[in-house]
Amino acid sequence: MDIAIPLYADMTALDAIGPYETLNRIPGARILFVGEQPGEIRTDTGMLGLTVDHALEDVPRPDVVIVPGGIGSRRIARDDRWIAWMRDAHDHTTWTTSVCTGAMLLGAAGALDGRRATTHWSTVHVLTEYGATPVGDERVVEDGKVITAAGVSAGIDMALTLAARIAGEDVARAAQLMMEYAPEPPFAGGTPLTTPPSALEQLPGMLVPLEVEFAQEQAGTA
Amino acid sequence: MDIAIPLYADMTALDAIGPYETLNRIPGARILFVGEQPGEIRTDTGMLGLTVDHALEDVPRPDVVIVPGGIGSRRIARDDRWIAWMRDAHDHTTWTTSVCTGAMLLGAAGALDGRRATTHWSTVHVLTEYGATPVGDERVVEDGKVITAAGVSAGIDMALTLAARIAGEDVARAAQLMMEYAPEPPFAGGTPLTTPPSALEQLPGMLVPLEVEFAQEQAGTA
Repeated sequence: MDIAIPLYADMTALDAIGPYETLNRIPGARILFVGEQPGEIRTDTGMLGLTVDHALEDVPRPDVVIVPGGIGSRRIARDDRWIAWMRDAHDHTTWTTSVCTGAMLLGAAGALDGRRATTHWSTVHVLTEYGATPVGDERVVEDGKVITAAGVSAGIDMALTLAARIAGEDVARAAQLMMEYAPEPPFAGGTPLTTPPSALEQLPGMLVPLEVEFAQEQAGTA
Repeated sequence: MDIAIPLYADMTALDAIGPYETLNRIPGARILFVGEQPGEIRTDTGMLGLTVDHALEDVPRPDVVIVPGGIGSRRIARDDRWIAWMRDAHDHTTWTTSVCTGAMLLGAAGALDGRRATTHWSTVHVLTEYGATPVGDERVVEDGKVITAAGVSAGIDMALTLAARIAGEDVARAAQLMMEYAPEPPFAGGTPLTTPPSALEQLPGMLVPLEVEFAQEQAGTA
C-alpha cells in the first residue's frame, strides 16, 4: 500500500503531516513524499523545510494520494506537470484525497467533476470552477473514491476515516490512541460561525496573499 | 518573540508541526527549528525528513521552547549537549513547553522538578524519575512557566493555550480559525479508557521499540 503525499513550495505543513502521522503506522503502509524533485521545499511561512524524497514521475501509480493545501496550491493547480501526474495517478488510485486547498489540484485534474467536495472555509466556493458541488458544512466529504477535507487540521479527521476504510475501524482507533487524538481545544471555534467578531478582526494580519486572492475571487472583487 | 522547536532523529513529526502550525501566524512570532546541526533529520518512521535550520548553540536563549517527543527523546534526554542547552534555555525562557515524550528532555534539564506534568499516555509514570508529579488525566498541564502536553496531537491544544497566553485569546481564536481546528474525530477514542479492546489488540504492531521499552519500565519488567 503506497500512499503518496505531494510536497511543494508554499504549502501548509500540517495539511500533510496530520494525515502522515495518522496513517504511518497502518501495517503495510508506506508513505512516499513526492514533489518536483528530491530535496527540500519550504512551507508557506518560510520557517520550515520538508524533504521531497521522490520526483512525481518516480511514483506514478500510488494506491492513495493525499494532496495538502496552502498558498502554493494555486500554482501547482495551474502547472501542466502536476496536473498530468495527478490525472494519471487518479485514474489508478484506490483513494484520491485532499486537505484544504489541495482540492484545487484534484479539481484541475478533473477528479472533482460532478462530485461533492470541500476545502478551506475561505475558498470553498472556488470548487465550482472545477465542476464540483461545494460543501461548506461538512469537515470530511466522501464521494466515491474521492475524499476531501476542510482546512488544515481537518486532514487528521479525514485520515482517520481513510484509515478505517483501508484497514478497518480497529486499526484506525489504535492509530488514534497512539497519537492520543482526543482533542480538547481550549476555545470553541475553528469555523467562521463559531469565531467571535473580536477574533475575526485579527485575521487580516494572518492571511497570506493567496488567501486574500481567493477571498477576493469569492467576493467577486478580483 | 523567538520560538525554538528542537528537531532530532527519530522524533514524532506531528508533535512539532502541530504547535508550529498553530503559532506561526502570531504577529511577531519567529519559529526557529534547532538541532544538532543544520540539515535534515529523519523522523521515527524513517519516511519523512525535516530540516534543522540552526544548531542548538546558535539559538541559546529563545523566548519559548517547544520540545517534541518520539522515540528519539530518550536519547536526547541522556545527551549532555542537549541537556546543557535545555537547562540554559529554560533559565531564560518566558515559556518552556513540551509535547508527548519531549517532556523527558525538560525533566533531564531539571525543568519538571516539583511540578505537575504530563506526556504520552504510555509513559506518564516515567515523569516521576524527574521529580515531577505525573498527571494522567489532563491533556495540557500548566505549572508556572512550564506547559506540558499529552501525546502527539495534544500539542495543538497546548499551542492554542500558549498562543492565548502570548498574544491574547482573540489571536489564538483567529489562529484556530485559520487552521480550521473544529475537530470531529470519526470515532470516540484517543485515550486508553475510550478505546475498545479489539482496537487495543492492534497496538503491538504499531508500537515502536522505545515505546515498548517505556511500557516495560512502567510495568517494572525492564
